[in-house]
Amino acid sequence: MNTKEKLQAKIQRTVRRVKAERPMVGSITNTVTINFVANAQLACGGSAAMVYLPDEAEFLAGAAAATYINVGTLEPIYAETLPRVAAFLHTAGKPWVLDPVAIGIGQLRTEFLLSCKEYKPDIIRGNASEIIALAGLWQLEGGGARSKVQGVDSSEEVSEAKDAAIALARHTGGAVAVSGATDLVTDGKIVCYSYGGSHFMEKVTGCGCSLGGVCGVYLTAADPLIGALTATQIYNWAGTKAQAEAQGPAGFQMHFIDALYQAGPEDVAGNKFEVEEV
Amino acid sequence: MNTKEKLQAKIQRTVRRVKAERPMVGSITNTVTINFVANAQLACGGSAAMVYLPDEAEFLAGAAAATYINVGTLEPIYAETLPRVAAFLHTAGKPWVLDPVAIGIGQLRTEFLLSCKEYKPDIIRGNASEIIALAGLWQLEGGGARSKVQGVDSSEEVSEAKDAAIALARHTGGAVAVSGATDLVTDGKIVCYSYGGSHFMEKVTGCGCSLGGVCGVYLTAADPLIGALTATQIYNWAGTKAQAEAQGPAGFQMHFIDALYQAGPEDVAGNKFEVEEV
Amino acid sequence: MNTKEKLQAKIQRTVRRVKAERPMVGSITNTVTINFVANAQLACGGSAAMVYLPDEAEFLAGAAAATYINVGTLEPIYAETLPRVAAFLHTAGKPWVLDPVAIGIGQLRTEFLLSCKEYKPDIIRGNASEIIALAGLWQLEGGGARSKVQGVDSSEEVSEAKDAAIALARHTGGAVAVSGATDLVTDGKIVCYSYGGSHFMEKVTGCGCSLGGVCGVYLTAADPLIGALTATQIYNWAGTKAQAEAQGPAGFQMHFIDALYQAGPEDVAGNKFEVEEV
Repeated sequence: MNTKEKLQAKIQRTVRRVKAERPMVGSITNTVTINFVANAQLACGGSAAMVYLPDEAEFLAGAAAATYINVGTLEPIYAETLPRVAAFLHTAGKPWVLDPVAIGIGQLRTEFLLSCKEYKPDIIRGNASEIIALAGLWQLEGGGARSKVQGVDSSEEVSEAKDAAIALARHTGGAVAVSGATDLVTDGKIVCYSYGGSHFMEKVTGCGCSLGGVCGVYLTAADPLIGALTATQIYNWAGTKAQAEAQGPAGFQMHFIDALYQAGPEDVAGNKFEVEEV
Repeated sequence: MNTKEKLQAKIQRTVRRVKAERPMVGSITNTVTINFVANAQLACGGSAAMVYLPDEAEFLAGAAAATYINVGTLEPIYAETLPRVAAFLHTAGKPWVLDPVAIGIGQLRTEFLLSCKEYKPDIIRGNASEIIALAGLWQLEGGGARSKVQGVDSSEEVSEAKDAAIALARHTGGAVAVSGATDLVTDGKIVCYSYGGSHFMEKVTGCGCSLGGVCGVYLTAADPLIGALTATQIYNWAGTKAQAEAQGPAGFQMHFIDALYQAGPEDVAGNKFEVEEV
Repeated sequence: MNTKEKLQAKIQRTVRRVKAERPMVGSITNTVTINFVANAQLACGGSAAMVYLPDEAEFLAGAAAATYINVGTLEPIYAETLPRVAAFLHTAGKPWVLDPVAIGIGQLRTEFLLSCKEYKPDIIRGNASEIIALAGLWQLEGGGARSKVQGVDSSEEVSEAKDAAIALARHTGGAVAVSGATDLVTDGKIVCYSYGGSHFMEKVTGCGCSLGGVCGVYLTAADPLIGALTATQIYNWAGTKAQAEAQGPAGFQMHFIDALYQAGPEDVAGNKFEVEEV
């Protein structure tokens, strides 16, 4: 088997394992898209639980098979919750996903995202502007001197974030997934380009957040690269399928979640992607 | 009329009264499923309002016909809000529903749920593990020595929670609804088994929470047993109907809420259930 | 062109500009309907971002083309966030929308809504009871001596709120939109009556909140009257269209968001409305 075939075999195994084991993923995530995150995780075969308070979050991080941290809609208590949980996950060696939503806005977000350089999330998922800004904040190659993040949307192309994504992955030893028209997933050694999805995805809030949550689900059953790639592939497959059935963004979202549920291992592995050594 | 026929007549009257009177139910509930709770309450004919702050919550508890308290995604201010509202409801003799989501996780949740032994919620709604854990926390018969709750999902069967449910209902003088493949509702004197629903219900976050919210709606128009049974029956009827129309969990959720809206008194009373004296 | 034709031309221009420019609107809004607000804003062509913390909210208010403040589900930190942002918006002359949800309940809500008399929101959107209560709180003509708000629902007719709406608009120098069976939009000089919508709108939580969020989107591309009127018109057009396709409230919500996405400038301007000089 060549590299791509090996990746496809691992993707299939990951999809199957999650459906069989129903792994529980704990999340600290924003209130805008928290429902979509949970339903996407359930549709893929995982189990979801969300908390805010420090002691609950640490307990959940210990009990869950993986943890998803998304820094949208921060609350004051997160000044205590987020560093405590990230430090716990790092020390305990438990897998987790970071979604640096709206990086550059506000002191708490900036301080926490800076500290994550030490806590080394297994998967970082973001749009191009977020990935470039995070590499910049961590003073890595490919990083932007200052955030070009506009609210929660990207103002840069995925290809522009390639160097930043590779640098981040090499620093953490994990994987980075950059979402956009064509998605990029890298572990710092290879770069995978995943195709598909839908123009409706930017018309439905939370397609990025819920992808991060689903990265957490697959991270329970695979290494970071395969976890991030499996999540990205199922999103692109389901997005393509749902667009064909939708009249608008709300119908798209319904068909999309249904497609996450319907997707078989071969569908996810068979969605178009390319591999590049770096 | 035998017992079952009497219950059916009361269920029909309850469904009719809610549609006619549009009772307002106040909720303090988690952010994951708060939208689903509100929309389910509206679909059944109720009116919904949600708050977090202590003074607002007490005001709303006084103004509403019933109150729903769900302890998912606790916030720091809930240390003040929850005991204040529960004490108010108990003292004022106003009906309320408790949903002990994720019992066993975190200090605030444990302390509040322990205090509810005194405040005696009119309806307690949970999955089997939550009901067993609550009976254990309150040191009642059938309770588990320690929580087997896994995040927000149950690891035990409804039948295993029968003794705990009966003991809780006898303590509060109200009713207990245990959600699962076959649902159980008891007032400590009779046990009703309600059939139907859908395998999709565990693939959509908030089917349990929103059932708790709808228990609150029907509790405005009936005693606790009939309130909990009417809610459970409409959920099973709507779940069966929606599954027949759905391709996946998101389509199921849409058809399910529509079915709650469409359900007539005869549909709800006619959904299959059995009665057992205890 | 007569007044109505001039308004229609401006509505068309506003719809077109938003689709072309994708303006970013920042929101501080309740967790019950936050997802619906964001998805409605995206469907109309805007970009959405939501925050809670004071520094983030002020940053976002500065970066966004307009801001939407909805006082449902207040959190303790809002005691700092809301006055700071409203003062900033007023001082900076940046356009914003106020949604006085549940006016009359709780100290923080009352204090903030009172202070808004000075901060003069460009658009105020509410149901009849909320508009009457706000005029009362500000001691303006047409205001009610005390709030008749019942939770989040109105107990009064839109026509009863006409004087209050005109008085509020004259005070702020902006516009007021009153939602109900027939919607009323006024800038204190003319009153527009917008027809359509659906009986399902009161069965889906957040039709009012998301209308407020969409007022923010159109306010980025027009004066307050046209911003509020364009939002009201697209809601009534989309509501009429969605009702024809829906079996219940959840299907209605899906078709409604899809219709917001599909609505062209002519559809929005062509929805039935009448103009009255006052």
